[in-house]
This record gives sequence, C-alpha cells and structure tokens, in this order.
Amino acid sequence: MALSLGQIIDSLGGRLIGDPKQLVHKLAPLDTAQADTLSFLSNPKYQSHLTGTQAGCVIVSPAVAETVKVTAALIVADNPYHYFAKLTQLWRQHTRVKDETLVHPSAVIHPLAKVDATARIGPLCVIERGAQVGANTWLKSGVTVGEDCHLGDRCIVHAGVVIGADGFGFALFEGRWEKIEQLGAVRIGNDVEIGANTCIDRGALDDTVIEDGVKLDNLVQIGHNVHVGANTAMAGCAGVAGSARIGANCTVGGGAIVLGHLELADDVHISAASVVMRSIRQPGQYSGVFPIDDNASWEKNAATLRQLHRLRDRIKSLESVLESQKK
Amino acid sequence: MALSLGQIIDSLGGRLIGDPKQLVHKLAPLDTAQADTLSFLSNPKYQSHLTGTQAGCVIVSPAVAETVKVTAALIVADNPYHYFAKLTQLWRQHTRVKDETLVHPSAVIHPLAKVDATARIGPLCVIERGAQVGANTWLKSGVTVGEDCHLGDRCIVHAGVVIGADGFGFALFEGRWEKIEQLGAVRIGNDVEIGANTCIDRGALDDTVIEDGVKLDNLVQIGHNVHVGANTAMAGCAGVAGSARIGANCTVGGGAIVLGHLELADDVHISAASVVMRSIRQPGQYSGVFPIDDNASWEKNAATLRQLHRLRDRIKSLESVLESQKK
Amino acid sequence: MALSLGQIIDSLGGRLIGDPKQLVHKLAPLDTAQADTLSFLSNPKYQSHLTGTQAGCVIVSPAVAETVKVTAALIVADNPYHYFAKLTQLWRQHTRVKDETLVHPSAVIHPLAKVDATARIGPLCVIERGAQVGANTWLKSGVTVGEDCHLGDRCIVHAGVVIGADGFGFALFEGRWEKIEQLGAVRIGNDVEIGANTCIDRGALDDTVIEDGVKLDNLVQIGHNVHVGANTAMAGCAGVAGSARIGANCTVGGGAIVLGHLELADDVHISAASVVMRSIRQPGQYSGVFPIDDNASWEKNAATLRQLHRLRDRIKSLESVLESQKK
Repeated sequence: MALSLGQIIDSLGGRLIGDPKQLVHKLAPLDTAQADTLSFLSNPKYQSHLTGTQAGCVIVSPAVAETVKVTAALIVADNPYHYFAKLTQLWRQHTRVKDETLVHPSAVIHPLAKVDATARIGPLCVIERGAQVGANTWLKSGVTVGEDCHLGDRCIVHAGVVIGADGFGFALFEGRWEKIEQLGAVRIGNDVEIGANTCIDRGALDDTVIEDGVKLDNLVQIGHNVHVGANTAMAGCAGVAGSARIGANCTVGGGAIVLGHLELADDVHISAASVVMRSIRQPGQYSGVFPIDDNASWEKNAATLRQLHRLRDRIKSLESVLESQKK
Repeated sequence: MALSLGQIIDSLGGRLIGDPKQLVHKLAPLDTAQADTLSFLSNPKYQSHLTGTQAGCVIVSPAVAETVKVTAALIVADNPYHYFAKLTQLWRQHTRVKDETLVHPSAVIHPLAKVDATARIGPLCVIERGAQVGANTWLKSGVTVGEDCHLGDRCIVHAGVVIGADGFGFALFEGRWEKIEQLGAVRIGNDVEIGANTCIDRGALDDTVIEDGVKLDNLVQIGHNVHVGANTAMAGCAGVAGSARIGANCTVGGGAIVLGHLELADDVHISAASVVMRSIRQPGQYSGVFPIDDNASWEKNAATLRQLHRLRDRIKSLESVLESQKK
Repeated sequence: MALSLGQIIDSLGGRLIGDPKQLVHKLAPLDTAQADTLSFLSNPKYQSHLTGTQAGCVIVSPAVAETVKVTAALIVADNPYHYFAKLTQLWRQHTRVKDETLVHPSAVIHPLAKVDATARIGPLCVIERGAQVGANTWLKSGVTVGEDCHLGDRCIVHAGVVIGADGFGFALFEGRWEKIEQLGAVRIGNDVEIGANTCIDRGALDDTVIEDGVKLDNLVQIGHNVHVGANTAMAGCAGVAGSARIGANCTVGGGAIVLGHLELADDVHISAASVVMRSIRQPGQYSGVFPIDDNASWEKNAATLRQLHRLRDRIKSLESVLESQKK
C-alpha cells in the first residue's frame, strides 16, 4: 500500500513543498518515522522533534513551514492535526478490504426491525423488534440494539455494546425491590461513535437520548433517561447515572462519574476520575481527585484528612486566642 | 394500547376518584403528562407539581387525596411509588408481544446444562456444561453462564452478562504468576436482576454467592468468593473484590469499590464512587469522595493535601507555643 | 473425583508425611476443610488455623512442618501457595471433561485469520481478517479478536473480551470530532490471561502491546498504544488511558486509573481505586484514595477540604504572628 504525495494533495487539499511523485508507505509519529513515512506536527511545542526526524514528509502549519529548515517534503495545512485525521481516513479507505456482505448471516435481526440498506451489521449482532439502524451506520460484532431503540446515520458501534438494556429502576417495598418496567427506549443521533462493551440503558418512561456527534469510549455506562448533548465526548469507564443531563461540547474524563439528576451546562469539562456530585452551570474544567503519593505519605495524609474539620476548629481557636491577645 | 382506570383498579387495587371508563394511553412524569396520561406523586415535596399537571389521572397517597384540589382523576394508594411500579409491570404485560419461542435457536446450550422448561433464553447465549437456569428466568441476548453455575427462579439477566468466568487468582512465583484454577462456581438465588455486561466470577474453591432479590446494575464486577446478601442493590460500575462479604439490604452506589476480604453488615449504604477499605460493622451511610471543584481550586487544595500531615504538626506547634505562653 | 496423596506427590513433588494411599476428594480452605479435604497454609500468621482444622491433609512449609503437631497428613513444600496453585491445575486436569471439538462451530473465523491447530475457540467468538491466535491459546465464548491483532501461545481469554476495537482518537475541528482512523493493531504475548468483558484497543499508528505473562482481570480498559510490561497484573475495573507505558512486574489495583502518556517504572504497585496523574519512576507502593467515613463526618471533612489551601494560609498567618511576637 502506497500513496503519492500528489494523490494526497489531490484528495485532501493543502500545499505541497516537495515532489508530488514521492511515495508514502506508512503513517507514523515524528520520532519513529522513516524515509517512506508521512508524519505530522500539530503542537508547536514539539517543533524540535521536526529537525531530527527521518520522515519523508511532514504535515505542518503555515507558520512552521515558513521557519523550519528540513530536507523532508512538507504538506502545509491550516490545521495539521485535522489534516492528519482526514489522512488516516483516506489511508483506511485505500487499505480496507471491502467485505462483500453488509449484513453478516450470523446476525439475529427481528423481522420488525428497520435496518437501512446501507448499514453494516457485523457477526452475532442482535437487533430486536422495532429497533432502527440508520444509513451507513456500522455495528461491529456482538452489538445488541434493544426493542424500539433508534440509531441515526453514520454511527460506529464497537463490539459488545448493549443499547437498550433496562434502566436500573426499582421501588423499595417492604424490604424488597419491586421492578419498575422500563417503558422508554434509546434514541441515538447521527455520527455517534460508541466504544466496546459500553452500555446505554433504555428510559423508564421517556427515552434516553444521545445527540448527534457524541463520542463514547469503551466500558462507559449511560443510565436511563440520561440526555447527552451534541458533540460531547466521554473517555473509557466513565459513568453517568439516571436522568443526568449533560450539555453539548462537554468532555468527561476516563473513570469519571456523574451522579443522577444533575445538569451540566455546555462546554463543561470533567477531569478523569472526578465525581460530579452537584450540577455545574458554568463552562470550565472541573476536577476532584485525591492526589496519588507514596503509600506511607498517603496513609498519613488520609488519616489526617479524617480529622480535617477538627483541624479547622483548632485553627479557629488559635486565631481567636491571638485575636484576644491583641486586645 | 390503552387501559381504562377501571381495569387498572381491578388488577392492582387502590381507590379510584374518577370515572372507571376513562382511558390511559401513556405513563409519564407529572410535568410532561397529558390528558391521556397516568402519572404519580410519590414524594410529598413535589406536591406543587400536582396542581399544574395536565395528567388525566394521578396516583397519590391518602393524605394527598384528602387535601388536593385537581380536575384529574385520582388513584389513591398507600404507597404510590410501589403502585406505580406494579402499574409499569401491568403495562408491560399488555404491551409486550410474546415471542413464540422460549429458547432462541442461536443459543448454545450444552446438553448437560439444565434449563427449566419455563426459562427464556435469548439469542446467542451460551450455557455451559452443568449450568442450571431456574423457572421463569430470562436471559437476554449474549449472556454466558459458565460450567456448573446456578441461577434461581424469576431472574432477569441482561445482554452481555458473564457469569462464572475464572476468578482472578494467581500465585506469584519467581516473578511470574502461576494460575490458581478456579474450582468453585457461582450460585445465584431467586428474583435476582443483573445488568448489561456485568461479570460475576466463579469461586476459587467454594462458590461465589448472590442471594435472593439482589439487583446489580450494568458493568458491575463481582470477584471470586464474594457473598452478596439478600435484596442488596449495586449501581453501575461498582466493583467488589474477592472474598468480600456484603450483608443484606445494602446499597452500593455507582462506581464504588469494595476491597477484598472485607465485611459489610446488613443495611450498610455506600455512596457512589466511594472506596470501602475496611470492614463496616454498623448500618448507616458511608462516603469517601474528593469533592469536585473548578480545576484551579482543586489543584491548590490537592497540592496542600499532600502536606496535610505536616500542616497538622504545624497546628500542634502553634498550640504548644500558645500553651507555653499561658504559663 | 479423588486423588491419592501418593498421586499428588508423584505429579507435583514435595515430601509427604502421611499415608500415600489416603484419598482427597476436595480442596478447601483450612476453616471449612473436612477429613476428605486437602488444604494449605501459606501465610505463617494463620498457623493457629492449622491446629483446629478438620482437613485430612495440609500443604505446609518446612518450617511449619517441623513445629506443628496435627493429626492431618502433611505435604511439605518450599512454597505452599505455589504448590497449591499447581495442585489446582492438576485437579482441573483430572476433573475437566475434554470437549471433543477445539473450534466451536458457532465461532465466526475469517478465512484469512490464522488460528493455531492447538488453539481452542469457544462458541460465538469472532476472529477477524488477519488476526492470529497462538498455540494452546483458549478463547472462551463471545470473544472478539479484531483485524490483524495477534495473540501469543497459552493465553486464556474469558467471555466477552474485545481485542482490537478502535482506540478513542478524534481531532476537534470546528466544534466536531473528526475521526482518526486507528491503523495500528494489538500485539499480545504468551501466557497472558484476560478477564471477562475486558477491552484492549488497537493503536492509532503503532500497535498496543501486552507483553508475556500479563494478567488482566474483568472489565479492564486498555487504551490505544498502551504498553504493558511482562508479568504485570491489573485487577478488575482498572483503566489505562492511551499511550501510557507500564513497566514489568507492576500491579494495578481494582478500579485504579492511569492517565494517558504516563510512564510507570518496573515494580510499581498502584493501590486499588487510585488515580495515577504523573509518571512514577521509582518502584514502590503508591496510593491516593479519599478515606471512607460515616456520611456526616465525610461531609464536614469534604467541605473543609475545599478550603484547605486557605487553611494553610491561615496557619502561615498564625505562624508569622507568633514569630513577630517573639522578636
């Protein structure tokens, strides 16, 4: 597999400083690139990596292109990282062997499910009664789409994803949990990507909603009646409890937890492993993680933390003693 | 699909204030309810929602029924939330299209597994040698029940659940991990519900035990030889390490972790994302989460936390200086 | 199923103090052992358990064998826990009913995948184009091995594992996420065990690498381009973000999170539920967990924690007041 720099420019635009006939056999980071490799520099702070690279060609910004002196060919693009993303797509297009069949014969699709003729359904998927899968959406292997759940167009759903399991709803009655049947479904917009073994529960009465352009990583849990706004991204092992409402263009770091019934405004960014325990109305970055330390130091600090409130009282006492001395 | 108020009262009891012929087409929360909708008021603090609702009928407590003035019909029940739970079950009973076949032909069931004649086994389930599935238990799609693992009656097991994978047991020997074969199994009681992609490992020598009425949400991890007492519920992404013993009627919040070999008494409630590092002998609510804050504040507080023990020493010093001044 | 003590000694070595014809019907811990049971004592601090045990035979260290007075037979081994591990393997060998077929007919294996003739492929596994599975490796049910991903020899992969889903790679461009195609794969060494529903993502350009002897528990997330060194073990629900590099012989506790692009040296041990936010260059045990407490105490301490930095300033002020008094 090889593409010439000319082919790349023809497909993706950008300005070439170099020979359009030069061939690229591989995409790689600057530090492991070879003469047959195309690489990219998106963060100006790594510009020093550029001078030592063996890469045959590098995607750079106009500012970098003006100042840098390298023997490598250059593709000049306004946003080199975005250009690189498009290039990976072009590369995949050329390398992917097209499977002949869109719907694998081992998939179990209910006759009353509606699967678009352009959708790709991988092996051992289950699509239940009344479910819908949109145009050019791709379910990899072993994906479950539950009754009446809808997926939009151009979605990618990785292996083992479960869409539309029952939300976790029970009424405690005389010490036992009475099941609340989950009568809602899941509605997923267009251009959503869902990572392996992630779960999105159906709503109790209304639907759970995932808006257009949302990206969920692996092993993410989305509870019933959650609403995730457009283009929000959540990293692996994140969990969102029932009826939480997350705005658009948010990011939720890996392992972070959002408690139920909370609201996050648009453009809220939650750091990895943080726990959101109250609604957040202002855009910004939010964190809450116990800093890691060598175990002995942690033990001492954690023990002291359990008496922190009393420490505050002791400081108060000291202050009032000193204050009274002044008088 | 519609039920009359009379039909509902006939099935579930309660006292109707209104016309038994009135039809219900939908169940919904008070704030989105319409004239064809049945809603409920379980928490008296939301009583104000009642006056403005469009709902055609509302389930209320006797106390509310006495005082409220609304045009909606009322179903009066001692425990409106429990009544609502029963109503969702009635609703589901009337709306669910019964699949003709109990055991999907794509399920892989070992000839020496014992599946009750009333159990429902979804597509692409795997039931291994010696496993047992009780009466009226329902495995949704892609569930694995490992060798010799037992499930009781009336259980619901959602897609992707793995029961009876090997516990994580190894003996470190000369820098390598020697596998300890996991010779126990998993025993699950009656009326247990298990959420999507949750894992319950088999025991090392004895069995892992899940008692009657336990409810586990999605993506929960139950380690080998864990014992979970009756009617305990665990929310999504919770994890319980090996040989922990959790009492009856406990709740474990989402993302909480219980370390291995610990014991939790009955009626212990662990807040979401808390880490149980010691046994808990007294009923009650327990928490341990770093409070989330804007990132800049968190950074300052977290940095200070790493010297908390020294701060305590400085307070001690201040106290002793002031104490010596007194003398 | 029964083994005589003589058979066990013949297979695994060790010195027997007792009758080689004595039969063992069960392996169990000391406290639940019966006369037909073989048990073990690995931790000298539990030696008191030995005197009261009903076990017919106990595996003990030479030091214990010299001092203990019991009626039970003894197997004396340098490392009783390792001996016990080997014994579980011997036990499993004798009890496991060999399935006739190595590759279950329901598995979906691409014609261009390479599965070793000795590998065991369970029901409903998916092995994609170009994937490789090594000698004596065992995929349990519902395992996905993605395109071009390689598994070495003698690996055990539990149900629901997804190897080679796309890494979570996107370039933010004008408020939307542009997909970065993940062109790398996953390379897994020999003697690796992977727990149920665990996910290991394929690399973006280079491969994700899991070295020989690594043990991953259930529901673990390994991001793209992560490198896990030989014989490292990670407990359930742990997550490692993209491009992190974890050394050899490390342990990562359950629910712990390692952020992206960090490096952990060899022999680093991360406590359960801790969050690694910086590279760790020195071997040792590291922790960072908010200590759990009754909810009221936690609330007070957590609230105070949010003003910890200001408390430090107040201590500073107090110190400088006292300092100035001295002068």
